[in-house]
Amino acid sequence: MKKILIINGPNLNLLGKREPEIYGHLTLKDIEEKCKEFSKNINCELDFRQSNHEGVIIDWLHDSKEFDGIIINAGAYTHTSIAIHDAIKSIGKKVIEVHLSNIHAREEFRKKSFISSVAVGQISGFGLKSYLMALLYFDD
Amino acid sequence: MKKILIINGPNLNLLGKREPEIYGHLTLKDIEEKCKEFSKNINCELDFRQSNHEGVIIDWLHDSKEFDGIIINAGAYTHTSIAIHDAIKSIGKKVIEVHLSNIHAREEFRKKSFISSVAVGQISGFGLKSYLMALLYFDD
Amino acid sequence: MKKILIINGPNLNLLGKREPEIYGHLTLKDIEEKCKEFSKNINCELDFRQSNHEGVIIDWLHDSKEFDGIIINAGAYTHTSIAIHDAIKSIGKKVIEVHLSNIHAREEFRKKSFISSVAVGQISGFGLKSYLMALLYFDD
Amino acid sequence: MKKILIINGPNLNLLGKREPEIYGHLTLKDIEEKCKEFSKNINCELDFRQSNHEGVIIDWLHDSKEFDGIIINAGAYTHTSIAIHDAIKSIGKKVIEVHLSNIHAREEFRKKSFISSVAVGQISGFGLKSYLMALLYFDD
Amino acid sequence: MKKILIINGPNLNLLGKREPEIYGHLTLKDIEEKCKEFSKNINCELDFRQSNHEGVIIDWLHDSKEFDGIIINAGAYTHTSIAIHDAIKSIGKKVIEVHLSNIHAREEFRKKSFISSVAVGQISGFGLKSYLMALLYFDD
Amino acid sequence: MKKILIINGPNLNLLGKREPEIYGHLTLKDIEEKCKEFSKNINCELDFRQSNHEGVIIDWLHDSKEFDGIIINAGAYTHTSIAIHDAIKSIGKKVIEVHLSNIHAREEFRKKSFISSVAVGQISGFGLKSYLMALLYFDD
Amino acid sequence: MKKILIINGPNLNLLGKREPEIYGHLTLKDIEEKCKEFSKNINCELDFRQSNHEGVIIDWLHDSKEFDGIIINAGAYTHTSIAIHDAIKSIGKKVIEVHLSNIHAREEFRKKSFISSVAVGQISGFGLKSYLMALLYFDD
Amino acid sequence: MKKILIINGPNLNLLGKREPEIYGHLTLKDIEEKCKEFSKNINCELDFRQSNHEGVIIDWLHDSKEFDGIIINAGAYTHTSIAIHDAIKSIGKKVIEVHLSNIHAREEFRKKSFISSVAVGQISGFGLKSYLMALLYFDD
Amino acid sequence: MKKILIINGPNLNLLGKREPEIYGHLTLKDIEEKCKEFSKNINCELDFRQSNHEGVIIDWLHDSKEFDGIIINAGAYTHTSIAIHDAIKSIGKKVIEVHLSNIHAREEFRKKSFISSVAVGQISGFGLKSYLMALLYFDD
Amino acid sequence: MKKILIINGPNLNLLGKREPEIYGHLTLKDIEEKCKEFSKNINCELDFRQSNHEGVIIDWLHDSKEFDGIIINAGAYTHTSIAIHDAIKSIGKKVIEVHLSNIHAREEFRKKSFISSVAVGQISGFGLKSYLMALLYFDD
Amino acid sequence: MKKILIINGPNLNLLGKREPEIYGHLTLKDIEEKCKEFSKNINCELDFRQSNHEGVIIDWLHDSKEFDGIIINAGAYTHTSIAIHDAIKSIGKKVIEVHLSNIHAREEFRKKSFISSVAVGQISGFGLKSYLMALLYFDD
Amino acid sequence: MKKILIINGPNLNLLGKREPEIYGHLTLKDIEEKCKEFSKNINCELDFRQSNHEGVIIDWLHDSKEFDGIIINAGAYTHTSIAIHDAIKSIGKKVIEVHLSNIHAREEFRKKSFISSVAVGQISGFGLKSYLMALLYFDD
Repeated sequence: MKKILIINGPNLNLLGKREPEIYGHLTLKDIEEKCKEFSKNINCELDFRQSNHEGVIIDWLHDSKEFDGIIINAGAYTHTSIAIHDAIKSIGKKVIEVHLSNIHAREEFRKKSFISSVAVGQISGFGLKSYLMALLYFDD
Repeated sequence: MKKILIINGPNLNLLGKREPEIYGHLTLKDIEEKCKEFSKNINCELDFRQSNHEGVIIDWLHDSKEFDGIIINAGAYTHTSIAIHDAIKSIGKKVIEVHLSNIHAREEFRKKSFISSVAVGQISGFGLKSYLMALLYFDD
Repeated sequence: MKKILIINGPNLNLLGKREPEIYGHLTLKDIEEKCKEFSKNINCELDFRQSNHEGVIIDWLHDSKEFDGIIINAGAYTHTSIAIHDAIKSIGKKVIEVHLSNIHAREEFRKKSFISSVAVGQISGFGLKSYLMALLYFDD
Repeated sequence: MKKILIINGPNLNLLGKREPEIYGHLTLKDIEEKCKEFSKNINCELDFRQSNHEGVIIDWLHDSKEFDGIIINAGAYTHTSIAIHDAIKSIGKKVIEVHLSNIHAREEFRKKSFISSVAVGQISGFGLKSYLMALLYFDD
Repeated sequence: MKKILIINGPNLNLLGKREPEIYGHLTLKDIEEKCKEFSKNINCELDFRQSNHEGVIIDWLHDSKEFDGIIINAGAYTHTSIAIHDAIKSIGKKVIEVHLSNIHAREEFRKKSFISSVAVGQISGFGLKSYLMALLYFDD
Repeated sequence: MKKILIINGPNLNLLGKREPEIYGHLTLKDIEEKCKEFSKNINCELDFRQSNHEGVIIDWLHDSKEFDGIIINAGAYTHTSIAIHDAIKSIGKKVIEVHLSNIHAREEFRKKSFISSVAVGQISGFGLKSYLMALLYFDD
Repeated sequence: MKKILIINGPNLNLLGKREPEIYGHLTLKDIEEKCKEFSKNINCELDFRQSNHEGVIIDWLHDSKEFDGIIINAGAYTHTSIAIHDAIKSIGKKVIEVHLSNIHAREEFRKKSFISSVAVGQISGFGLKSYLMALLYFDD
Repeated sequence: MKKILIINGPNLNLLGKREPEIYGHLTLKDIEEKCKEFSKNINCELDFRQSNHEGVIIDWLHDSKEFDGIIINAGAYTHTSIAIHDAIKSIGKKVIEVHLSNIHAREEFRKKSFISSVAVGQISGFGLKSYLMALLYFDD
Repeated sequence: MKKILIINGPNLNLLGKREPEIYGHLTLKDIEEKCKEFSKNINCELDFRQSNHEGVIIDWLHDSKEFDGIIINAGAYTHTSIAIHDAIKSIGKKVIEVHLSNIHAREEFRKKSFISSVAVGQISGFGLKSYLMALLYFDD
Repeated sequence: MKKILIINGPNLNLLGKREPEIYGHLTLKDIEEKCKEFSKNINCELDFRQSNHEGVIIDWLHDSKEFDGIIINAGAYTHTSIAIHDAIKSIGKKVIEVHLSNIHAREEFRKKSFISSVAVGQISGFGLKSYLMALLYFDD
Repeated sequence: MKKILIINGPNLNLLGKREPEIYGHLTLKDIEEKCKEFSKNINCELDFRQSNHEGVIIDWLHDSKEFDGIIINAGAYTHTSIAIHDAIKSIGKKVIEVHLSNIHAREEFRKKSFISSVAVGQISGFGLKSYLMALLYFDD
Repeated sequence: MKKILIINGPNLNLLGKREPEIYGHLTLKDIEEKCKEFSKNINCELDFRQSNHEGVIIDWLHDSKEFDGIIINAGAYTHTSIAIHDAIKSIGKKVIEVHLSNIHAREEFRKKSFISSVAVGQISGFGLKSYLMALLYFDD
């Protein structure tokens, strides 16, 4: 059984509670549950976390030895954090970058990702399904 | 049962035959078969095509009325074709953009996609699994 | 009596059938008919064509010896095709660039035209009337 | 009968008197007369003006309540005046942008127009005929 | 008692009469009155002007010896006029830059201000209150 | 009585203690007191905070339900934090951006604000008065 | 005897009265007198003018038939006015561009001149002597 | 004996027939003949083709197994076609890029080549001799 | 005896444990020891710290009154943190910027340093020796 | 009597011998003679030199102690040599930059001057008279 | 018999001695010999030179009256020397630009050539054969 | 005992003699002496040179076989000389780049170094100590 770490970045804790017309009615808790449900089928165990602090996310990446893979939705830090880029590069794990909304169809500054160049790949725009697609990667 | 059109753009016909160390040993035929196999589980029927001609791809998009969704790997036309962008926008179908390799971790000119702003979302970097993830989107 | 060639580029075949709220309810056939009607008053004969293929448009430009003038709505190829630019330059005909919508009031990438620098002039934003204005140019 | 205001910007008063090899032998007076002649056929009445002063042009736009449409050749202010852009936007009239020469085939700084994004459309490169084409827009 | 000059630039004379859904129902006259009312509390006397002419605004700045401070809403000239920049720099007065709308949340070309680098500061986005806040600066 | 949250970002805790020739002799404590004094006149109650941590500022924004408005001087995070931009956008509160110094008259990198596009408006350059002006916004 | 027109643009009327530490103690009147004195030696007659209005400067350029040459210090309009550029180009006179200060050693936005490409040449940085050097050009 | 494929892109079929003052009086047929003549001396056999269609050129590149080397004058597609770039990269053949005119001494947009980074080298500016020089490369 | 604070930024805690082929086999602990050893010869006492949190680094800079100098390897924050830039500027200490690898020979985004403009100088590329060189600065 | 050094940079030795239709028929020797003639009237003694070597020009600048002023036409090094910029800055002499042709009306790369920011001023476009104007600066 | 001058720029003297895995085992002496051998067949006589000094190369270009043509491999000066550009332009000789390696497939800064716009053409990427191809140009 | 070559570029010969308030009172001779003194402790022998000629510096780099390492302060050539970049790359020696002043805190054009990408590392901003730090690198 694989162990997968799912890291959620800044403002994702507000999901479903505010601006539901944009981000939908699913809360982050809902996403966590649906991911856990899905992961059973593909024989994975999940650790699902959220933080608004760049430093905390870096610490989590450093302490990820036990995991077989990482899925990260770094929120706004995607576009600004070279430190998270370096952390991913340093730990040598398979990391998959996900986004709920299609970052390529939004503001110009959301198109740049410091994570994509050190990730296996990027999944962007499918809401909850972005997470499930990422989990599918770990299905053998 | 949903009908899905999968369009493959220029040079994808060479897949698996050349540069296997980069693109792997799967041919486009292999990908087609594995997609069809996967699509059975999610109750979809596939029409899988490839062309090196921009105009042909536009014609296929125009003639897609019968399909419930489209998955497109436009290859190099991703980065240059405003005409395909316009075609996707005009037909009003759900279109998913996929790439075998992680286009965000390659040459600068591959980061720009004229398709992403009119697609539901983009999946990039997971080889065959990029296609399967896209199919997962059509799973209810 | 002058002979005028009118060339329509990619996606214009969809006109009037889709997104009528944006592009209006006139089909390309309607535009052809109204152009032919208008051309009678100014003593011109029209040949009205459409293609989604860049190469076909170039071939038409090369084979335009018999025409006294050309009106081109190159659609998305306006913004990307140096090959059409070169074709127009090579044939030494009077070419008028038209656009249904006002390309200067849309996305940034639609402002650049590779055709305008080799055309007599550009008419942009007047729907069907963009074509009629262009025909007016050939009225002595 | 429609009332149309035609505004001509800086340096257009010199037309026909200097550099006739470039701008032709028609004076601005000639253009006015030919426009008035043409306007009879399309049941329009014209008010034809010229000023070298940006502020005067803005004042004219503000005081245009009585007109059914405006044709503007803002000359060099086309490329620099956000104030004229704002004036056009504020008055909510149909404004058509015209240019004698093809501004897209000249210096780089003439390609940028602050008027086009608030105009119905742009006509550029047809000399006197640019004005007549614009008048055609107001023909029902 | 301090004397304050308030200068309003191009198109501000249209305020409240057109596009009230954007700029509100206050006319420039209303703003003048509310500013004068507010200025009584802070012991200031106001001279409130408007012009669409860049040159007139420069002349007013030159002839401002009698004033203790200047509040300027230069409208579109904010973004294009180095001449007003130079005028403000030359006269050595305390000048406060105000804008009714939030210029930083609008078109890219409205973000650049040639006035801000020679002003005490900039207030942008608070409608009438932008003017009152500026007056507050002169309250001892 | 309105409740207003005032958030101060990185390095503002040093105010008045260092470089007084630039930032003046007022400490952040002094500013807090003068703001509280001023807020009495306009019937507001203040909660005045400072942090050097981006994550803490985001947490404060998320936990601001009880407040009627927010005034933020995000210091250097103004220019780099898309995460704070997203937080402000998510909470749907009226947020006013203030700066002690005139950021438009300083280094190029201080001109860009990620906050201004999601704030009511921006006040920049008036020292303590920038805060008081912001409070004036909440005066009915 | 040659007739030379000297045109001075915005803010030059303030010369010598304000910021003498930067621009020196010479007033524009002083410069006029010294130019007239110098012009006697080289057999020229001068007409020396100043305006803060872009439109007025254009009008003067248009009405310059009687002059053998023009010297222009367009002040800030140097950097922004394509209309003055066009006026100079249209009249076909020898025009010399002068600046009191060295515009190439100041702010970035002062390095761009719309006048230089249509002038005989540019003289920049020599105070009063910039004018005298320009007059020297007309000495046979 | 080596087999060499020579591919000519869009508009090259017009060679010698139009604009002879620029491109000379040699037709593409003439170039073909002179290349074949030259190739005898260096023991090569030529296959000489032309197409205006990007897709056709890609197809030809894919079907080039039998050739020992390829010479390509991709015309305008040189500057826009990432698809041809990818095709050349995929087939792993020695490809030489040639141009009749000196593309580095023409319009800015002709300086960028998507072919050069995957070609052995580039020869530009020598008319017919550009082809002969390329053939010389295959001389042992 | 001088007191020197050495601050290490994000990801430096991983040193020597991961990617030793790039960063060498020295751990951060090793570097600390060798620095302490070296500092004895130049009569300095060291305080050696590491954090992944931008806010913590700012706090340390603020609380550095007791130190005679600071050496900072800010890791990825070097390239993104204006807040650290401001902190260094505010405290008025001699700060030396060091990097283990040569940041000028790596990715484009690593060339920009927000620290260098407020540091005494920058030392980049010498591994452990970058730290020892920095210490040498404090040797009288 | 003042001593003036006139330095001429690369390719100026060819003057008058080649391309006389562009640069005129005056040789550098002719210019030297006319400068010497002119300098008598203004009580100056000239040392007139030319070199194609950047290093030689720097050496001459270093060894200029005896001169009261320097006139430099650095030719192409104007646009590329930071070393000459530094040399001029280091020696603390009054240096005047001259150009025969109007560098602002030529190729884009000739508009940038590394000399102008450390020169008293720049004179560009008056042929021989550019030198005489520069000498006029040294006339008391 | 034609006389051809071949100029080699900086660092080419090291050829074959260092980094043979990149530049091959041919020394510059070898290239000279093979060029001389080849030139016999095409009835040319060669003068083959190398210098690391920009000024020396300019001097050689100036003193090239006796030659029928020039082949130049300006090495790194290709990308930086406007002075060599000017020298080539001044002498009015047929100059051919050659490069051993494919400069269009290397670092970004090697793509810009100041020589190509004044050369007949450019040959890049064929090692010794780049020189032979250039000689072929002079074969009648 | 190691042999180290120290190369100083343009204008460094003026050190200490001019602008001592900026560059200090040490002459280049003083720096040489202090470097030699320091080098005794670390068992190195120095050869210390200066030239204003780019070509001479390249020649020295080529003739450096006998040295174990090179320290270079290329002055202004740092920012413009690709030829020196190539020379360093060709010789395969350990080269350390030093600067007296902090080039990252000066004009924009001094931030770019063509040397850093081929050097071991860069030391910038410590005056004489920049040289001593560089020597420390060669201490075993």
